[in-house]
Amino acid sequence: MHAASLRSQPRSKWAERFKGERELSPAWRICYKPPLPKRIIAAEVGTSMTPSEEMNGSGNLMDFLDEPMPDVSTYEDFHTIDWLREKSRDTDRHRKITSKSKESIWEFIKSLLDAWSGWVVMLLIGLLSGTLAGVIDLAVDWMTDLKEGVCLSAFWYSHEQCCWTSNETTFDDRDKCPQWQKWSELMTGHTQGGGAYVLNYFLYVMWALFFSFLAVTLVRVFAPYACGSGIPEIKTILSGFIIRGYLGKWTLLIKTVTLVLAVSSGLSLGKEGPLVHVACCCGNLFSSLFSKYSKNEGKRREVLSAAAAAGVSVAFGAPIGGVLFSLEEVSYYFPLKTLWRSFFAALVAAFTLRSINPFGNSRLVLFYVEYHTPWYMAELVPFILLGVFGGLWGTLFIRGNIAWCRRRKTTRLGRYPVLEVMAVTGITAILAFPNPYTRRSTSELISELFNDCGALESSQLCDYVNDPNMTRPLDDIPDRPAGPGVYTALWQLALALVFKIFITIFTFGMKIPSGLFIPSMAVGAIAGRIVGIAVEQMAYHHHDWIIFKNWCRPGADCVTPGLYAMVGAAACLGGVTRMTVSLVVIMFELTGGLEYIVPLMAAAVTSKWVADAFGKEGIYEAHIQLNGYPFLDVKDEFTHRTLATDVMRPRRGEPPLAVLTQEGTTVEDVEALIKDTDYNGFPVVVSRESERLIGFVQRRDLTLAIKSARQKQDGVVSNSVVYFTEDAPQLPASNPQPLKLRRILNLSPFTVTDHTPMETVVDIFRKLGLRQCLVTRSGRLLGIITKKDVLRHMAQMMNQDPESIMFN
Amino acid sequence: MHAASLRSQPRSKWAERFKGERELSPAWRICYKPPLPKRIIAAEVGTSMTPSEEMNGSGNLMDFLDEPMPDVSTYEDFHTIDWLREKSRDTDRHRKITSKSKESIWEFIKSLLDAWSGWVVMLLIGLLSGTLAGVIDLAVDWMTDLKEGVCLSAFWYSHEQCCWTSNETTFDDRDKCPQWQKWSELMTGHTQGGGAYVLNYFLYVMWALFFSFLAVTLVRVFAPYACGSGIPEIKTILSGFIIRGYLGKWTLLIKTVTLVLAVSSGLSLGKEGPLVHVACCCGNLFSSLFSKYSKNEGKRREVLSAAAAAGVSVAFGAPIGGVLFSLEEVSYYFPLKTLWRSFFAALVAAFTLRSINPFGNSRLVLFYVEYHTPWYMAELVPFILLGVFGGLWGTLFIRGNIAWCRRRKTTRLGRYPVLEVMAVTGITAILAFPNPYTRRSTSELISELFNDCGALESSQLCDYVNDPNMTRPLDDIPDRPAGPGVYTALWQLALALVFKIFITIFTFGMKIPSGLFIPSMAVGAIAGRIVGIAVEQMAYHHHDWIIFKNWCRPGADCVTPGLYAMVGAAACLGGVTRMTVSLVVIMFELTGGLEYIVPLMAAAVTSKWVADAFGKEGIYEAHIQLNGYPFLDVKDEFTHRTLATDVMRPRRGEPPLAVLTQEGTTVEDVEALIKDTDYNGFPVVVSRESERLIGFVQRRDLTLAIKSARQKQDGVVSNSVVYFTEDAPQLPASNPQPLKLRRILNLSPFTVTDHTPMETVVDIFRKLGLRQCLVTRSGRLLGIITKKDVLRHMAQMMNQDPESIMFN
Repeated sequence: MHAASLRSQPRSKWAERFKGERELSPAWRICYKPPLPKRIIAAEVGTSMTPSEEMNGSGNLMDFLDEPMPDVSTYEDFHTIDWLREKSRDTDRHRKITSKSKESIWEFIKSLLDAWSGWVVMLLIGLLSGTLAGVIDLAVDWMTDLKEGVCLSAFWYSHEQCCWTSNETTFDDRDKCPQWQKWSELMTGHTQGGGAYVLNYFLYVMWALFFSFLAVTLVRVFAPYACGSGIPEIKTILSGFIIRGYLGKWTLLIKTVTLVLAVSSGLSLGKEGPLVHVACCCGNLFSSLFSKYSKNEGKRREVLSAAAAAGVSVAFGAPIGGVLFSLEEVSYYFPLKTLWRSFFAALVAAFTLRSINPFGNSRLVLFYVEYHTPWYMAELVPFILLGVFGGLWGTLFIRGNIAWCRRRKTTRLGRYPVLEVMAVTGITAILAFPNPYTRRSTSELISELFNDCGALESSQLCDYVNDPNMTRPLDDIPDRPAGPGVYTALWQLALALVFKIFITIFTFGMKIPSGLFIPSMAVGAIAGRIVGIAVEQMAYHHHDWIIFKNWCRPGADCVTPGLYAMVGAAACLGGVTRMTVSLVVIMFELTGGLEYIVPLMAAAVTSKWVADAFGKEGIYEAHIQLNGYPFLDVKDEFTHRTLATDVMRPRRGEPPLAVLTQEGTTVEDVEALIKDTDYNGFPVVVSRESERLIGFVQRRDLTLAIKSARQKQDGVVSNSVVYFTEDAPQLPASNPQPLKLRRILNLSPFTVTDHTPMETVVDIFRKLGLRQCLVTRSGRLLGIITKKDVLRHMAQMMNQDPESIMFN
Repeated sequence: MHAASLRSQPRSKWAERFKGERELSPAWRICYKPPLPKRIIAAEVGTSMTPSEEMNGSGNLMDFLDEPMPDVSTYEDFHTIDWLREKSRDTDRHRKITSKSKESIWEFIKSLLDAWSGWVVMLLIGLLSGTLAGVIDLAVDWMTDLKEGVCLSAFWYSHEQCCWTSNETTFDDRDKCPQWQKWSELMTGHTQGGGAYVLNYFLYVMWALFFSFLAVTLVRVFAPYACGSGIPEIKTILSGFIIRGYLGKWTLLIKTVTLVLAVSSGLSLGKEGPLVHVACCCGNLFSSLFSKYSKNEGKRREVLSAAAAAGVSVAFGAPIGGVLFSLEEVSYYFPLKTLWRSFFAALVAAFTLRSINPFGNSRLVLFYVEYHTPWYMAELVPFILLGVFGGLWGTLFIRGNIAWCRRRKTTRLGRYPVLEVMAVTGITAILAFPNPYTRRSTSELISELFNDCGALESSQLCDYVNDPNMTRPLDDIPDRPAGPGVYTALWQLALALVFKIFITIFTFGMKIPSGLFIPSMAVGAIAGRIVGIAVEQMAYHHHDWIIFKNWCRPGADCVTPGLYAMVGAAACLGGVTRMTVSLVVIMFELTGGLEYIVPLMAAAVTSKWVADAFGKEGIYEAHIQLNGYPFLDVKDEFTHRTLATDVMRPRRGEPPLAVLTQEGTTVEDVEALIKDTDYNGFPVVVSRESERLIGFVQRRDLTLAIKSARQKQDGVVSNSVVYFTEDAPQLPASNPQPLKLRRILNLSPFTVTDHTPMETVVDIFRKLGLRQCLVTRSGRLLGIITKKDVLRHMAQMMNQDPESIMFN
C-alpha cells in the first residue's frame, strides 16, 4: 500500500532533518525547533488541545460526532492549514451567531461584541506594539550611550536627555554638558590624551561584548525562536503553516529585551524586522483573547497580517507604507476588510509611538527629512547609478549571506553560536570605535547623512567654506566649496561603507534578533552621500561643463547631498528586499512630499531590475528556501508544461493509493490501514473495481470516531462493517452492528483531472489555499496531489533539490 | 433536451431587454447599447474578428485545428471571460517567446521588447491621461468664466489668467482688472444696477443651457457610452465582462469634450468619475498597440486597472490614493505586478498634469491644503457628528438617486433625455446664480471652504472682527469673533447645502458625463464649514464652558473651520462611495501630513458604519444592480447554506443536460444539437449510460471544426461518426471516414461535487474567475453551474429578482 503522503507524525521528518545538526550542536541552537515543554506551547498558542486531552473530554467528543466537521482545531505543529475549510468553519460560526442573535437581547449584544472584536484586537495591537516600539527606542538610546559614558544627574538618561535637562548648555553644544561624563572622565578625570582614548575604547568594546553576550544567552535559554529577523518565518506562517510558539508570549518578551541588547551592542543590525515579529507576537497574544480568532487559523492570520503592518508602521513611522508592506511583502491572504483594519492598527501604533515621543521631536523616526529643495532632470543619472549600486549590493548581500548561513548550518561553525556572536561583536566594536561614523548608532548615522547642511550645522560633513559676503537668508544656502572637514568625512565614510558591507553579511542570521533594513539603508546612505558630495563639488567647480550649464548657475543651490543619501538608501533596501511600492511609500512618508518620488522610484526600479537580473528572489525568499519552509510564493510564475498526472502520487510503478471503500470494510481493516500508513487522510471510493470517488476522510477524524464508537456504541467490535453510504448495507442479522461514518466524510473533496496543466493546479492551490487535491480521469480516482508534492515539483522544475522542502 | 444555459446568441437577451425601452424612445438614448456600425466597433476594440471573417481565412483555420485552443479571442459582446483560460493562454504565449528568444538575437530583442511593453503602455497612459486632465482643467476654467464675462486682451483667457497678464492690478484684487469685462459691461457699459444684474443672470443661464445642450447632443449623436460616471461599467468590465466600444476611441474623444461642457454648464457634477473612464479609454487604446494585451482579455484588464489608478491620480493629485482606489474600489484581479505598474502610471500622470500646471500654483488640485494647525481630542465629537451626517447623506443620496434612475428607466421620462438635461440645467442655473457660493464652480467652492482664514484673506467667509491691538505674526491668528460677512455667508451656505443636496440626486445618471465625487465633497464641505464656524464661535464666546476650558484659552487659535470642511467632505464622500483606505489616503495626500488622519478616519469610519446600517451597497454597486450587470462582488459575503445541487441546471423535473458522447455521435447529430440549443458549450461523457465526464467542448470550436472538416477533409459527411477518444473507434469499412475532435476538447473542465456548499462554489468562481463549472456525484455528471446561475442564486438569496441579471 503506497500513497497520499499526507504524513501525520508531525515531528518525524523534522526530527530526521535536524538530527544531523543536533549531533553537531546542542538542541537550543536550532532556531526552528520548539524548545519549551509541550504544556507551555499549547498555552501560548492557545488553539488546540493535544489529541489525548480531547479524548478525555467525552462531552466534547459527542458534540464532535454530531457535527459534520469537528470544531476544534485539528492542525499539528509544522502542518499546513486548509484555507477553504477554515473559511467555511468561520462562515458556520457566523451563521450560528446571526441566527442566535434574533433569539434574545443578550445574544444580540453578544453578536455585536463579536462583530466588534476585530476592531478591539486591532486597537490593542496598535497600543501594545506602539508602546513596545517606544520603550525599545528609549532603551536603545540609553544603552547605546552607556557604552560611551554616563549621566551624573540621572544614570537612566541618555546623552541627549542628560544635556537637555541640564540648563547650563545650549542645545547645539550637545557634546559638552558637564552632567554627561565619558567613562575615562569619570574614572580617571581625563577627557583628552591617549590613555583616556584607550580606556574609552576598551570600555566601549567591553560593553558591546556584555550586551551581545546577554542577548545571545537570553535567546539561548528562554526563546530560541526569538533569533533572526522573523520575517521569513512570518511569511511562512501567514501562508498557512503552523509553527507553535513562534509567536508566543515568551518569544515576545525575550525578543523585545534581546532586541534592545543586540542593537545597543553596536552590531550592524536594525530593529525593523524584529519589530514586525514583535508586533505579530502581540497580534497572536490578543487574538487568543477572542474565540473568533483563536479557534480559526485562517482568521488568526488576518490579525497577524494587520499586526505586521503595525510593526512596520512603528519601525518607520509610516502607517500607509506599513499596510502596503504587509500587502506586498508579508501577507498571503489579504481581504479588503483586513486592509482597512490593518490601516487602523498601523495608525493606532503610530500615534501611540508619537505620544511616547522617544526622539523628543514628535517624529516617529530619527531620520525624518524636512527639506524641500528641488532636484533637476540631469541628476537622474547619478540616481540611476545609485540604483545600479543598490542592485549589486543586494545581489552581493544575498549571495554572501546565504552562503555563510549555509556554511553555519552544515559545518561545525554552527556549534558555537555564542562564540560566533561574541566574535562578530568584538570585531565590530574594535573596528567601529575609531571611525566616528561607525561608532554612533546606525540610525543616527542615517539621520546625519539624510540631513541637508543648514547654516548652523556644526558637523564635520557640513564643514563647507562659507562666503563671508553672503547676504542671503540662512535657509537658502547656495552650493559652497567643501572644507577640509568634508574631505576627512569622505574618507571616513568610505571606510565605514566597506566595513558595513562586509560585517552585515556575517551579522544577519546569527542567533540574536537582527533586522537588515537599517544596515542596508546605512550602506546606501553612505554611498549616496559620497556620490552627492562628489556631484555637488563637481557642479560648484565646473559650472561651465555642458552637463551642469543648463541647470546650475553659480551661486545657486543645485545639489542636495542628503537627497542622494536618501535615494541610495532606497536603492540598497530595494536591492535586498525587492520591495517596490511599499518602499517608495515608506520613503514618501519619511519626506512627506511628492517632490522626491521620481528620484526614489527611478532608483528603486533600477535596483530591482539589476538585482533581478542576478536572481529573482529577495533575502526573505532566499532564507525561506534555505530553511526549506513550505512556502508557495504568489509572485513566482509557474510556466512549465507539466500536467497533474506528472505530479500526482502514486507514480508509475508505485503501489496503488490507500483508499477506503464506501462499504464492506471492517473496523479492523480501517485500524490496520491507520496503523500501517501515516497519511493525513484517505479517499473513499464506491468500490475498488469502479474507483469512483465519493469523498475524503481525515485520518484524525477516523481515529477519533472509531475510538469513540468502540467506547460508547454497543455492538461495535473489530469485525463491524464500516459504511459511508446514507443507508446501512443489507447484512445478515448475525453480523455485528455496523458503524456509520458518513458524518465525518467530506463529500466535496477538491478534484482535478489528470490532464489539468500544473500551472492551473498551482494557481488553484495558491488561490484557494488547499492542502490536497484528488486527481481523477473520467470519474475514476487516479491519485492525489498535496501541497508538498506541488512544492517539490516546483523545486524540481527550478533545478533545486526537491527533498529540501520539509513539511508534514 | 434542456441544459447548460451558456447562451451563444449574444444580442438576443439584451435585445429583448431593451425592446421595451426602444419602443418608448430612440435607440441612442439607451446608454448601454452599442450604437456604431459593427466595423467601427471591431476596429475600436481591436481584438476579435467576427466568425465569418475567420472562416474566410483558411490558413488561420488550419492553424486553429492544429492547436488545442484557438488563439483568437472567442468572446462575444456582453459575454463574460474565462480568467483561467486567459491566463493559461498568456503563459503559452510567454513560453513560446522565451523558447524562441534563444534562437536568434532578433528574437531575443523581440522578447525584451515584449517584456518592456507593459511599462511602455503605462508610460503612454500616464502621459495621455495627465495631458487630457490638464486640458480639461484649463478648458473648464475658461468656459466656466465665459458664463460671466470675457477677457478683452485675449478671449481664450479665463478670468484669473486675464487679470494675471494684466499688469495694472495686484494679485489680490482679482475681481477688478479692466481687461476682464462682465457681459453687461461689454454690452451696455453698466456694471452695477438691476439691469446689468438681470442681463448677466440671463446670459449665465443661456450659456449654461447652451453648454449642456451641446454636451447631451454630442453624447446622443456620437457616443452614447460617454454618459454617466463610467465607474460601475468599468468595475463590471474589469470583473471580466465584455462591453464592446465602451472604452473605444470615440467614447474617449466625446467623453473628454462633453465632460468639459457638462462641468462648465454649472450642473452639480464633477469630473472625477469620468476622468477614470477617460483614463481607461486611454488604457484600452494603448493596450491595442501591443498584441500581448490586445489579444488577451485578462492582460488587457491589468492595464485597465492601472489606467483607473492614473485617472484618480490626476483627478485628486493623489497617486498613492489612486492606486489604492483602483485596488479597493474598481479592480477585480490585481496581481502585485499590476500594483507596481499602476503606481508608475499614476505617478507619470500626476507629473504630466503638474507640468501643465492648470491651476497656476504647481499643485495638482485646486483644493490643496497647506495649514498645519493642531486639533484637539474634544473636537472628535463634532467630527463624528459630521461622520453621521455623511452616512445619512450617503443613504439619502443612494436611495433617492436609484429611485429616480429607476423611474427614468421605466417611465416615459426616459424618452426625453435632452429635455431632462436642459430642464435640470435651467433649474440649476436659475437657482445657482443669486447665491455666490453656488454660482462659482464647485471646485472653487470646495477650495474656499477648505481654506483657513489668513490675515490677508478678503472673502466674506473670513470677515472676522480683528483685534486692533494684535501684535502677533500674521500667520498665527487667534480665534476672533465673526463679523456680519460671516453670518451672511452662513445663511448663503445653508441655502447652498439644501440646493446641492437635492439637485445632485437628480443630476447623477443623466445622459451626460457626470461624476459625483465633487458634489458629494461640496455637500460635506459646506456642512463641515458651518459646523466649524459654529464651534469656533462657541469656543470664542464661551471659553469658560467645561467642554472648552481644557483646551481653548482666550486668544488661542483653537478651531480651524477649514479642517471641519475637509472632514465633512471625507465623510460625505465615504457615505456615498463606501471607500475607506483610499478615501483617507486621498485626503492625506491633499494635506500632505499625518496630522489630520485621525479626524478623517474617525469621520470616514462613522460615515461608513452609519451608511452600512441602512444598506450595504455603495452608489456604484447600486447602479450595477440597477442595470443588472453580471458583477460578482468580491466584498459580498455569501453566508447561506445552499449546496451546489440546489443551484445547478437542470433542476428537478427539467429535461436532462445536453451532452455529447465520446464516440457514436454523427456529424448530423452534433449539427442538430448545435441548431436546437443555444448553449455556449457541451460536456462530453463516456456514454449516456455511465455519464462519466471526460471533457467540455465549446460550441464555437465545435461549429468551426465541423465546418472546416466538411470543407477540407475528404470523406467527412453528415453520417460520419464524431469521436473524442484518442483512437478512432472500430467501424466497418463501408462507413464514412470518422471525424476526430479530441483537439478541441478541454480535458480539464472544472468540477465540483453536488454536495459542495455554494459558499465554496462562489469562492471558486470569484477567485479563479470561472465561466462555468460542472457538477458531479461519484464521478457521474449531474449538471452545470454557470456564472449566471451563481449570480441569479445570490440575487434570489438576497430576495431580489433573479431575472434582473442580464448576460449571455
